[in-house]
Amino acid sequence: MATQNNVVQTLAWRENALELLDQRLLPHEVRYQRLYTAGEVAQAIRDMVVRGAPAIGIAAAYGVVLAAQIHWSKNPQCWRETMASELALLATARPTAVNLCWALRRMERLLDALTGDPVPVLLAEAQAIHQEDVAANQRMGQLGAALLEQSSRILTHCNAGALATGGYGTALGVIRAGFTSGLIEHVYADETRPWLQGTRLTAWELLQDGIPVTLLVDGAAAALMKQAKVDWVIVGADRITANGDVANKIGTYQLAVAAHYHGVKFMVVAPSGTIDMNMQDGSTIPIEQRSPEEVRTCAGRAVAAVGTAVWNPSFDVTPAALVTALVTERGVILAPNAEKMAQLMATQSTGSVVFQ
Amino acid sequence: MATQNNVVQTLAWRENALELLDQRLLPHEVRYQRLYTAGEVAQAIRDMVVRGAPAIGIAAAYGVVLAAQIHWSKNPQCWRETMASELALLATARPTAVNLCWALRRMERLLDALTGDPVPVLLAEAQAIHQEDVAANQRMGQLGAALLEQSSRILTHCNAGALATGGYGTALGVIRAGFTSGLIEHVYADETRPWLQGTRLTAWELLQDGIPVTLLVDGAAAALMKQAKVDWVIVGADRITANGDVANKIGTYQLAVAAHYHGVKFMVVAPSGTIDMNMQDGSTIPIEQRSPEEVRTCAGRAVAAVGTAVWNPSFDVTPAALVTALVTERGVILAPNAEKMAQLMATQSTGSVVFQ
Repeated sequence: MATQNNVVQTLAWRENALELLDQRLLPHEVRYQRLYTAGEVAQAIRDMVVRGAPAIGIAAAYGVVLAAQIHWSKNPQCWRETMASELALLATARPTAVNLCWALRRMERLLDALTGDPVPVLLAEAQAIHQEDVAANQRMGQLGAALLEQSSRILTHCNAGALATGGYGTALGVIRAGFTSGLIEHVYADETRPWLQGTRLTAWELLQDGIPVTLLVDGAAAALMKQAKVDWVIVGADRITANGDVANKIGTYQLAVAAHYHGVKFMVVAPSGTIDMNMQDGSTIPIEQRSPEEVRTCAGRAVAAVGTAVWNPSFDVTPAALVTALVTERGVILAPNAEKMAQLMATQSTGSVVFQ
Repeated sequence: MATQNNVVQTLAWRENALELLDQRLLPHEVRYQRLYTAGEVAQAIRDMVVRGAPAIGIAAAYGVVLAAQIHWSKNPQCWRETMASELALLATARPTAVNLCWALRRMERLLDALTGDPVPVLLAEAQAIHQEDVAANQRMGQLGAALLEQSSRILTHCNAGALATGGYGTALGVIRAGFTSGLIEHVYADETRPWLQGTRLTAWELLQDGIPVTLLVDGAAAALMKQAKVDWVIVGADRITANGDVANKIGTYQLAVAAHYHGVKFMVVAPSGTIDMNMQDGSTIPIEQRSPEEVRTCAGRAVAAVGTAVWNPSFDVTPAALVTALVTERGVILAPNAEKMAQLMATQSTGSVVFQ
């Protein structure tokens, strides 16, 4: 599997199928799954073979291509109708990230106008979504890195890296760009229970790139900040509402509160496809509750007594008031609010626009 | 092994040996180790067969009895001298909890005056330390529960239960007393990485007692508070300094910051043996750094890439300013500071003294 700028590639279209790096096996094994149907893509999203808001959006777009490929070859007359249930499966695979719906809407917009074999057009659109995501990440990397001071110490949570996106990463894109520019002294990564994306994915991704990274348990972040060892917390996002509230991996809000208390700056990095202008604020974002088994087990082994009750929200919401900077490919918002968000979404620029 | 008030017993003296419940095997297996030497006790403390500040203090006291037993029988003339190295082993087994040194000092005070077989006197003293700890826990349970409102929702961290003490527990003692008095609606337990004491010990202990408990990952605590589902955070302590700063399991400080931000009250429950009046504030408390392997693994399985760097402090320090109430067997301090701490330590009362 090809890599891009030495960065691991989490998904690619190859020989009429979608290849997904199985993130559940990392860092021990780099193994790709080949998926042939939209149903398989939906299952892979649910099972977290692929995860990260931008990556699941791109995977879903390729899922539409897979569905069209099968249904067009079976029934060129009413392929659109027969693929509806699979599109619904994709749309509901995970509820919190809005990129999934954003990518599906973009694919669906093409469907009606298509005549003849729909696959080349849909594949081109999915690949455009994929490539635009990589370009957006590189742009965000530059914009975010421009906010960093010399010798910055960064704390990140979960994995908003190449593995979570089309390539390069959102939060880790800023870290990559900042490191390349000589602005980053050290990166700390929360292990991020229950899935340990920090341990298994972020630490591994940064090690591959030779970026110095130290792992810590999620509970240790405030103690690290108290020792004045963190200048910026940098995270990705699964959905950002019209007022700038941010849904991201569980634990992000706690980090934002700790950062606020210690005067540590807090950066959110996400492509504009993550922004849901139809939702006024974070209170109405659907928060996925995942299986209690994720917390009752650790690395696949039971650690809790049988019958232990668990609260396992996969995401939490950080209010805009705790965000120092929101970095998108359209520009940067400092201290986000509804007015600045509307301005950002109205701009067509992908220049270094800063909304202060 | 006998239990006390239906509560599991973590350590007991039986037939000239110390029996320790191996907490590393919980909740899957209830198995006791029999220890015959002080060296074995020191090793058990280091390896976390026994953990929790009060419990390791009591175990160390019994360790002195074991040392005296062997050295008196081998050499009744200079048994004191020959056991010195084992006492040093015990004293340095874990650096953060002060109860270990407190219990050892109390045992050592007897040594010089002893004539004849030292074992009966030392055993009586170790058993007194043990029984006084249980009585102190029961007293603290009453004092702490008196601070709770009707239908209180409690969040606790790590395990400050019967397993961490001579019996009954400090933080879990307050929860037990509060539940018995009908004041507690629900208990939430942080899983407490890396050792998962919340999952393996606290949830298990509370399940045994029929107290309703829900487990969550450490990163989820602030999100729970934001939903207004927590009235009190209640935790134990490993060392409390003269100004009221509190060293406790890593993650406690982060909880205290989150509680402060959400207006949630924060209670620390610890016997007065935990208070170190020789240390002015928390900045000089030695913080034990444990092996990176604890974070690189989960339930015994490798989860990180080989060579991943780790920061793994076992404890953190919560400043007195974030503590709503400090509960000891001598009385309760609201909003602790140096003056009130000195008053508390000057009192001989074990009544319901409240220093406001």
